Amino acid sequence: MNSCYNYVKSFENDDILPPYTWLIIRVDGRHFGMFSKSHNFRKPNEPKALALANKAAEAVFREFSDITLAYGHSDEYSFLLRADSKLYNRRREKIITGIVSIFTSAYVYNWHKYFTCTLKYPPSFDGRIVSYPLIEHVKDYFRWRQVDCHVNNQYNSAFWCLVAQGKTTDQAYQILKGTDKNFKNDLLFNTFQLNYNNLPNLFKKGSTLIRKSTNLDNKAMGSETSSTTFLDNKTIESQQEIDLKIEDYEINTLTELNANVELVTDDIINEEFWNAHFWVIDSTVKPPKLINNQ
Amino acid sequence: MNSCYNYVKSFENDDILPPYTWLIIRVDGRHFGMFSKSHNFRKPNEPKALALANKAAEAVFREFSDITLAYGHSDEYSFLLRADSKLYNRRREKIITGIVSIFTSAYVYNWHKYFTCTLKYPPSFDGRIVSYPLIEHVKDYFRWRQVDCHVNNQYNSAFWCLVAQGKTTDQAYQILKGTDKNFKNDLLFNTFQLNYNNLPNLFKKGSTLIRKSTNLDNKAMGSETSSTTFLDNKTIESQQEIDLKIEDYEINTLTELNANVELVTDDIINEEFWNAHFWVIDSTVKPPKLINNQ
Amino acid sequence: MNSCYNYVKSFENDDILPPYTWLIIRVDGRHFGMFSKSHNFRKPNEPKALALANKAAEAVFREFSDITLAYGHSDEYSFLLRADSKLYNRRREKIITGIVSIFTSAYVYNWHKYFTCTLKYPPSFDGRIVSYPLIEHVKDYFRWRQVDCHVNNQYNSAFWCLVAQGKTTDQAYQILKGTDKNFKNDLLFNTFQLNYNNLPNLFKKGSTLIRKSTNLDNKAMGSETSSTTFLDNKTIESQQEIDLKIEDYEINTLTELNANVELVTDDIINEEFWNAHFWVIDSTVKPPKLINNQ
Amino acid sequence: MNSCYNYVKSFENDDILPPYTWLIIRVDGRHFGMFSKSHNFRKPNEPKALALANKAAEAVFREFSDITLAYGHSDEYSFLLRADSKLYNRRREKIITGIVSIFTSAYVYNWHKYFTCTLKYPPSFDGRIVSYPLIEHVKDYFRWRQVDCHVNNQYNSAFWCLVAQGKTTDQAYQILKGTDKNFKNDLLFNTFQLNYNNLPNLFKKGSTLIRKSTNLDNKAMGSETSSTTFLDNKTIESQQEIDLKIEDYEINTLTELNANVELVTDDIINEEFWNAHFWVIDSTVKPPKLINNQ
Repeated sequence: MNSCYNYVKSFENDDILPPYTWLIIRVDGRHFGMFSKSHNFRKPNEPKALALANKAAEAVFREFSDITLAYGHSDEYSFLLRADSKLYNRRREKIITGIVSIFTSAYVYNWHKYFTCTLKYPPSFDGRIVSYPLIEHVKDYFRWRQVDCHVNNQYNSAFWCLVAQGKTTDQAYQILKGTDKNFKNDLLFNTFQLNYNNLPNLFKKGSTLIRKSTNLDNKAMGSETSSTTFLDNKTIESQQEIDLKIEDYEINTLTELNANVELVTDDIINEEFWNAHFWVIDSTVKPPKLINNQ
Repeated sequence: MNSCYNYVKSFENDDILPPYTWLIIRVDGRHFGMFSKSHNFRKPNEPKALALANKAAEAVFREFSDITLAYGHSDEYSFLLRADSKLYNRRREKIITGIVSIFTSAYVYNWHKYFTCTLKYPPSFDGRIVSYPLIEHVKDYFRWRQVDCHVNNQYNSAFWCLVAQGKTTDQAYQILKGTDKNFKNDLLFNTFQLNYNNLPNLFKKGSTLIRKSTNLDNKAMGSETSSTTFLDNKTIESQQEIDLKIEDYEINTLTELNANVELVTDDIINEEFWNAHFWVIDSTVKPPKLINNQ
Repeated sequence: MNSCYNYVKSFENDDILPPYTWLIIRVDGRHFGMFSKSHNFRKPNEPKALALANKAAEAVFREFSDITLAYGHSDEYSFLLRADSKLYNRRREKIITGIVSIFTSAYVYNWHKYFTCTLKYPPSFDGRIVSYPLIEHVKDYFRWRQVDCHVNNQYNSAFWCLVAQGKTTDQAYQILKGTDKNFKNDLLFNTFQLNYNNLPNLFKKGSTLIRKSTNLDNKAMGSETSSTTFLDNKTIESQQEIDLKIEDYEINTLTELNANVELVTDDIINEEFWNAHFWVIDSTVKPPKLINNQ
Repeated sequence: MNSCYNYVKSFENDDILPPYTWLIIRVDGRHFGMFSKSHNFRKPNEPKALALANKAAEAVFREFSDITLAYGHSDEYSFLLRADSKLYNRRREKIITGIVSIFTSAYVYNWHKYFTCTLKYPPSFDGRIVSYPLIEHVKDYFRWRQVDCHVNNQYNSAFWCLVAQGKTTDQAYQILKGTDKNFKNDLLFNTFQLNYNNLPNLFKKGSTLIRKSTNLDNKAMGSETSSTTFLDNKTIESQQEIDLKIEDYEINTLTELNANVELVTDDIINEEFWNAHFWVIDSTVKPPKLINNQ
């Protein structure tokens, strides 16, 4: 449909992401402090919200087969796109807006499956895409996010225990300011009879989604991964831990995902995880040698 | 929270859009041919879907005060961000993912207000952002989209009349292939007793959203624009036109928007529209002169 | 010539500058403090070096007809490329490396025409390219550089007078630190009997190169511009000013340029300059309307 | 120096190249067909021009210690910048204009050391920079250029033999059009008594510059590389080959380079070359692990 105005199209300028590099797209909740408060999310972790985010991430997996791995905690989710992916010819805007939109849409669409309370207003997310040259960078990216999950979770556990005890949020903030991990562990254990190690892995380790590759042999598929069951045998030690048991139950109920995606709550910092899932990361990044006609 | 993995952040590279240029973000439905079919959208135009898109666009207006004008038709919507906007320091990804996510979220969230049928699966959108140096380019951009609306609508009107008459979609395609606008107008009028001019403006002209500026005097606010009423006095000439009357009624019911946004279905190709709304486009693009100390 | 290694070309990614924007390329001397010292440049201004830079800039004009205006002082030179230029399809690297290379090459090639001393080692330059949406931005860019020329020149005049008087460079620096323009003017006049206003325009105003457009009528060509003669009637007041007279003579001898380029040393801050040269900046930035077939 | 015009600086937007990727900058002669003709370059290869290009490349090595490898033939030269280089914070324009300018400047500056004829006008070069994620891509890049050298050289050898024989350039073009390497080898051998294999390596393999790393042990320094001597024992078979002997002599005289750079004319397609010079490519691309405080 040509008109005299078509020239404005000449201003469009596709930003192409570098070829043969790993692409990681991170989706983040916009104003989720306010959102979680107005929807009464349990503190420090709302299992229903985490399960909903996993469900939204699953929708992204279903749409883009080049996404093989994802990791989420709190209100963020990171997706790994294979280095050899040609998705949308690696156009930055097309990839990032598609993923953010699918995640958002699935989050709103599935809300009522996880929450009984009404969604009061439409939540939204933003996203960024980063290109990494080496698989080692990719592993370190995901390690970075899991360290972040751990640090935030430990802090928030202590913070909300203090608040539950009657402290104001400002007092809780002052008590924890500048303290190290041992202080927080001791506080949780001695004051609140909460063994941090007994928290569900979903909270401590976050959620890792792995594409199940049906055209690969079973050995490669990492059937030895722990996961999908989040309930472990533990001695219940406190009211907090009774709550945890309830949460564990909820988590198990909530986390039924698509057959092609596996949800684990493993440690992804250790090399073992990456070795077990080498088929996910063993991309054919090798240059496509054609005919050697020199 | 520093860890040995924090270095991966150094790969992040914010793409900054050029300052003092007009930014237009276009949101487009992904796979909306399939989506509209599976949700039985009326052809060639589904007023409920257009009203829902307007509602979603309104949510974008509410969130970003630097957006002053928008135009949508079919499954696309274009938003104008003022040339002097400093939104997110003009970071490309932050702006585009925020807008696409809000639009998507509001679309899904408000679905049931416009449709009685259930939303079968979460729809999604992609987006692109383009920078324009001159206001003349901006006007021509929106003219380009309205010409596109008109041409598509005329084609689709003829196409779906043919299909309603019993032609297969392939036959309809062959009949219209390569024909000009006069042929289609004659076909609509002579074969289907449909006067194209009597179609609702919402279909022919698309939807234009204009920010009402409460801190500007009334004279500037273009109170003389036609708009918000879509029902005109027309002589009904065919069954198609009776349907149109119903649609007009629906449109009026559906299009109640936020007080700060005005919906019009005007011609935005003529200079009159732009003159009447000069306050929208009269950006303070002038350079911020500080102290003249030469 | 296809080989199995050709795939590496797929990593090339042309960066296209936005269409219909003004492009300004600034070339800057690399390590020119050291270079000017090792070649005994006169302080604060070496007319031979300025003339050589003008000669190098002229070579850029000769090669690229879309360059219509340039401005240089000290070891820098800025070139304006018309907003409607399609040079190298507006590929960033192609434009910037071509201009920097031509400037560098002409600088070395013409050295012996201006200097009797041998060029001890090859000097080099770097460059940057910036896109400006409005002609007002372009004017302000060149005003910015001329203000910079003036401020630097006044400072350097005072600095080198102090050094000539016997002060160390460190003492001179301390004396001038934080002083305003009046202090420096008074210092020059009272201590050194140097009237700043009597300095050659080449030093105070820098060099402006304007393309002579032979296919435009004479009226438009600004034949009323002062310029190309740098020697004004002045009362000689000091030894410094005697030197200036010599420099003026040199400047006149040195500044014979190509017939299609005019060198002026005008004030380019005032609007008068821009009005007189409107044909330089009156780019056909208007959108290329094709056929209005709506 | 602040003025009301400083705001124009806000339009500057540094393009940062991705971290931890290999950067290759290729410099290419602009209009070198014309340049080589007007300076009577010997065909198909002018040893003096190649030696001058090597000298210009050496100047780039001297300036940027992060450049470890370069390869040139004809009028092009490619420089490898280490993946972990922080040169100019990896600002694209700063790196590329600096390298192109140094190369250009040294080419003009050193002209008279290689040519007795006067340089008639200043030659210029353009450049591009490309980012490669893996060392395998880097190797393949340089292989690609050496294959190109070989193919061009074989073609040009046959072409200029035909012209020397009395053919017009158009006739020579038609004779060689679409022919394969065997045809050209046979033509050279049977018609011109020229054994392609006896051509100097400088012509067949191009020039490879390798940084000598003085702080590395000698074993690593590849002392077993052939190189720096270009004269081999060969049976002279034709007038062409007598000319070659002269050229060989010239080459040896011409190619005295800086002590820190080694010039070789090796095959860089085979893995042996890369193994021998592993210390050049064994970049510390490993992520800079700081403190593991998880």
